[in-house]
Amino acid sequence: MAGNTFGVMFTVTTWGESHGAAIGAVIDGCPPRMPLVESDIQEDLNRRKPGGGRSASPRKEDDVVEILSGTFEGKTTGTPISLIIYNKSARSKDYDAYREVFRPGHGDFTYDRKYGIRDHRGGGRASGRETAARVAAGAIAKKILQQEGITAVACTKELGGIVAESSELAAIGQNELYCPDAAAAQRMMKKLSEAKKDGDSLGGIVEIIVRGCPPGLGEPVFDKIDADLAKALMSIGTVKGVEIGAGFQASRMTGSQCNDPITPDGFLSNNAGGILAGITTGQDIVIRVACKPIASIEKEQATVDSAGNPTTISVTGRHDVSVIPRIIPVCEAMVAVTLADHLLRRKPLSL
Amino acid sequence: MAGNTFGVMFTVTTWGESHGAAIGAVIDGCPPRMPLVESDIQEDLNRRKPGGGRSASPRKEDDVVEILSGTFEGKTTGTPISLIIYNKSARSKDYDAYREVFRPGHGDFTYDRKYGIRDHRGGGRASGRETAARVAAGAIAKKILQQEGITAVACTKELGGIVAESSELAAIGQNELYCPDAAAAQRMMKKLSEAKKDGDSLGGIVEIIVRGCPPGLGEPVFDKIDADLAKALMSIGTVKGVEIGAGFQASRMTGSQCNDPITPDGFLSNNAGGILAGITTGQDIVIRVACKPIASIEKEQATVDSAGNPTTISVTGRHDVSVIPRIIPVCEAMVAVTLADHLLRRKPLSL
Amino acid sequence: MAGNTFGVMFTVTTWGESHGAAIGAVIDGCPPRMPLVESDIQEDLNRRKPGGGRSASPRKEDDVVEILSGTFEGKTTGTPISLIIYNKSARSKDYDAYREVFRPGHGDFTYDRKYGIRDHRGGGRASGRETAARVAAGAIAKKILQQEGITAVACTKELGGIVAESSELAAIGQNELYCPDAAAAQRMMKKLSEAKKDGDSLGGIVEIIVRGCPPGLGEPVFDKIDADLAKALMSIGTVKGVEIGAGFQASRMTGSQCNDPITPDGFLSNNAGGILAGITTGQDIVIRVACKPIASIEKEQATVDSAGNPTTISVTGRHDVSVIPRIIPVCEAMVAVTLADHLLRRKPLSL
Amino acid sequence: MAGNTFGVMFTVTTWGESHGAAIGAVIDGCPPRMPLVESDIQEDLNRRKPGGGRSASPRKEDDVVEILSGTFEGKTTGTPISLIIYNKSARSKDYDAYREVFRPGHGDFTYDRKYGIRDHRGGGRASGRETAARVAAGAIAKKILQQEGITAVACTKELGGIVAESSELAAIGQNELYCPDAAAAQRMMKKLSEAKKDGDSLGGIVEIIVRGCPPGLGEPVFDKIDADLAKALMSIGTVKGVEIGAGFQASRMTGSQCNDPITPDGFLSNNAGGILAGITTGQDIVIRVACKPIASIEKEQATVDSAGNPTTISVTGRHDVSVIPRIIPVCEAMVAVTLADHLLRRKPLSL
Repeated sequence: MAGNTFGVMFTVTTWGESHGAAIGAVIDGCPPRMPLVESDIQEDLNRRKPGGGRSASPRKEDDVVEILSGTFEGKTTGTPISLIIYNKSARSKDYDAYREVFRPGHGDFTYDRKYGIRDHRGGGRASGRETAARVAAGAIAKKILQQEGITAVACTKELGGIVAESSELAAIGQNELYCPDAAAAQRMMKKLSEAKKDGDSLGGIVEIIVRGCPPGLGEPVFDKIDADLAKALMSIGTVKGVEIGAGFQASRMTGSQCNDPITPDGFLSNNAGGILAGITTGQDIVIRVACKPIASIEKEQATVDSAGNPTTISVTGRHDVSVIPRIIPVCEAMVAVTLADHLLRRKPLSL
Repeated sequence: MAGNTFGVMFTVTTWGESHGAAIGAVIDGCPPRMPLVESDIQEDLNRRKPGGGRSASPRKEDDVVEILSGTFEGKTTGTPISLIIYNKSARSKDYDAYREVFRPGHGDFTYDRKYGIRDHRGGGRASGRETAARVAAGAIAKKILQQEGITAVACTKELGGIVAESSELAAIGQNELYCPDAAAAQRMMKKLSEAKKDGDSLGGIVEIIVRGCPPGLGEPVFDKIDADLAKALMSIGTVKGVEIGAGFQASRMTGSQCNDPITPDGFLSNNAGGILAGITTGQDIVIRVACKPIASIEKEQATVDSAGNPTTISVTGRHDVSVIPRIIPVCEAMVAVTLADHLLRRKPLSL
Repeated sequence: MAGNTFGVMFTVTTWGESHGAAIGAVIDGCPPRMPLVESDIQEDLNRRKPGGGRSASPRKEDDVVEILSGTFEGKTTGTPISLIIYNKSARSKDYDAYREVFRPGHGDFTYDRKYGIRDHRGGGRASGRETAARVAAGAIAKKILQQEGITAVACTKELGGIVAESSELAAIGQNELYCPDAAAAQRMMKKLSEAKKDGDSLGGIVEIIVRGCPPGLGEPVFDKIDADLAKALMSIGTVKGVEIGAGFQASRMTGSQCNDPITPDGFLSNNAGGILAGITTGQDIVIRVACKPIASIEKEQATVDSAGNPTTISVTGRHDVSVIPRIIPVCEAMVAVTLADHLLRRKPLSL
Repeated sequence: MAGNTFGVMFTVTTWGESHGAAIGAVIDGCPPRMPLVESDIQEDLNRRKPGGGRSASPRKEDDVVEILSGTFEGKTTGTPISLIIYNKSARSKDYDAYREVFRPGHGDFTYDRKYGIRDHRGGGRASGRETAARVAAGAIAKKILQQEGITAVACTKELGGIVAESSELAAIGQNELYCPDAAAAQRMMKKLSEAKKDGDSLGGIVEIIVRGCPPGLGEPVFDKIDADLAKALMSIGTVKGVEIGAGFQASRMTGSQCNDPITPDGFLSNNAGGILAGITTGQDIVIRVACKPIASIEKEQATVDSAGNPTTISVTGRHDVSVIPRIIPVCEAMVAVTLADHLLRRKPLSL
């Protein structure tokens, strides 16, 4: 339990550094006899790939995934599935300048304090690149959910302070920001372009909506499904806040406003976000996460070097302007992994 | 891993229903030879006890804790510490009316769907009463933190939409809402009084500040300390959102605004909330949680009974108007338990 | 994971010292809606109680178990079951002589080295009394197994070097040693009587046979069911060896002797002990454990005191001459807990 | 917790099938700044390689290990270490005959019953080849032990019924069976040769001795160090029995014979095998495991095919006559992994 494994019955262990030989994941607990080939996974990896929108970094990653174990003739066998993605375009030299200096907003300082050693190249283990392994594992989790009729879809709810007024998932395929509000998406793109010109970066809010989830998932009292979702999402480096349903807004409601009335035809509202007392109600699960602006910016910042001396830094290189939209499939993956785990932890009502 | 245990090296297992014989906790992994007697724990339990402010329920709970194991002559022995709190004032009859009806906003519906059976009295396992066991365990965690010079203090940041403008922890002992802003506290009390008259309830925001935490706590990549804190706090029934440092506000900043500059004398700001890449920086850890309004309200609400027929409900009895301030020591407890666990997971730099 | 919890999906956490206020167990993950009352548990506790045969200690323990949580109107609810057994007849004074001296064969020395503090009364946490909590938890596990038609029965295979020639389980109810060979049982009783006169103690071998277990239980590769059974049984203080099926004898066979031939009507032999590649075959599971002689003996032994000075010790008081037969229900309990856990870890072939 | 991960603070997750693309291990929790390069691991892998003695299979495996993550400039970084060994000489065709038939003594039948699908080639996940990943992980564990002055060395105590009379570790390097008794080793080799001629196989007993282990390792009550060692070793496919110290022989001793007297200069004997009440005493840890004869034999055996029809089988191909001596480094590895885990679980006496 040294921190690189997630889950109880469906476990994901990730490994690898940004500029090492490869990154990968071992998925244990996947049900047997489920069809699974590389292309099932590759699709989500491609959605995470840079090079799409203005928000994206010019680094060309192929991110080709290979399945090394756990399948036989195109089907899962119930044994661990090992996935590997080789690091092809790693230009370690790009990072020589950061070997002895702590980039503000990054894990450079804390890894140094924790381990007394760090792979400085691209953030090493703390790099956003690590999330590719999560996306790959998430694609397998999604296939499990699919068998149960469950989908987990994320979209851009806010970027650089610009709010998407709609949550219409049908619209999100129409723009490269996965934004349900086309007009807002255009303004977001403009804002990204400006931030890039300024050598600065932007944050935003991602909303994840789970449909088709049966009631009864989640465990009392510490492993509530919202607790596990919060952990799953907060474990993404960029995330600084998580809310469920009405979330922070619920704290400003009265009980009579916030409680979702129940009728024979179902709940009349969904302030609970599909979860009551940590267990799913069968309604949509609604989650929002706050993503901080990308820490790597060209703008000069004050910092110190390893020896503790003051210096300044301008982080150049192939950096995105915002984690949105690349973080979208990562959020989906972590939600899918959490739900697959709880599906497999669920006990049948009768043994 | 059926959901009632939290932690890796310092584990807390809680048990008990609101109106059963007792509730309790087993704490495993506590370091040996630490002084520990019941009064160390009773103090925090008393802070959670109802009967203080207008926000509190008139139910008189004694909540006397007994240590049944794990200490010898006033010191911990390293073996599991079993704590028990007998349920004294449980009036089960009060709940007969709710046996076959699902209270909106409560776990009645979801527990029914998950287990096909439930102890309906006071919410059973899903009752807020369960948090007394957390507070008791948290008091032991706090003693561990104390040995390292770490404190975790929570306060009321917002209640019924009224915002505390200050975060001055020194002021929180001066009013019964643990609010750092005395004037705001008075307005909050008035609002609570009005809500009570309306048969309604209020929500709010609690802020927890950890001081004295050394750098280097937390594990990559899934067991980031903010991920574990988010899980710990979201596992409290009332909590619908968790944010760290600038939190959701960080999503509206630019990178140059959000990154905390580093100087030889430390960080110049703390938007990170004391955590970078999931590992503590040594700054204060700052966390805020959104608490929904209490679900039990006198105001009539639409719902269904166990048979699925429509009905209405008015939840009478001894209910608080807001979880604030009773939730304050619960939040502190969950933060303390998480930090104690990570302190004990931390490996020495040299074996 | 500080050592006092066993299991993954059906977890047992035990707590308590021999001469503290009480001992107990928290069982998490028990399926809901299973009938469960105290008398279901008490029966096995009574089998563990001293006072039966010549092998038993005169200490009169009532060992009355109470269920404090997790049931409602006589049925399990799916929430944690807390069991408590108060220590009634604890005469702490009896142990004053051992406060500063390490009893050979006991954990006194190692607990001192590990924790720097120990509850010396009756061995504290390392006392055989701790196994009462295991037996109580095991009774619940047995009820789960019963629902699946599985039984786990232990018997005395060897005591003081006297071997039971038969394994006929039907005979074990006929003598107080749970020995399937009545004639051998008589010789064993005589040997126990002699050892008692000598102020000495005896060891023996217990065999556990599981019937009705379906094929397919167990996980690759570390959580093989034989691996988990070995851990479960070796975690009983008295056990120094565990073997499955032909066990150590298998090491002296050839492959053609050891392999169990398969026919359309089933296996022709059971050298595998019902387990192949860590997964059950559907045959009887056969396990034997070696129990060392009880360490507490009147015969004078050389030892040292806490200060490291040489001394001698004669352990008087209410001690058994052999852990057999009291260990019988403990072995059954640990096997039952392991199987219940694996039953609940088993995934349905289709989700 | 789907069975392919071992350990709590030093975890080993293995993956891979005998005839898939590769096998590997992810090691999490390794302390940072420890020198580690491939050759540290390769040495033990070479000891496991076939081709040495008469007991070995003619299959030429290179078993070249690559470190894919977790090190930087030749030192561990504290992040997960991913090891990969590509399967080079896999001749899947060799196994076509076994696709629809269950080999006696193998996991073919049980995997079929558990998963409803299996990779039949060479036993798939249940193959002895999986132990190569354990050996690789064990080599890292050994480096951790080395830093503390601890060694774990295994030897052949018995083979085909021939007993090594000595336990002199110095002698084990002198013969290819790692046998401490040179004369016995010669007779063992002869016996192996005969078994090979008969198309049969042999079992044996391996003894593992740990030197330099400090007192105080191990946790009460379920995670006793002997319980964890028993699980670790019983999880090796070939092992059918585990005993500690005097083991099964202890069951025939009296208490006065079995208890190890304590003197100011240490214990006078070691029947306990270095462990009391589940915690190390500081003496040598002594463990013996019973290895069954290899299940793959040329001799014709009765079995059934997938459809349940009776048939016979003669398993030809590149099979060893005994798991000894190739199992020697596997036993060492599992012991080393268990001890490294407990070293890292150990809490400092003062925080």
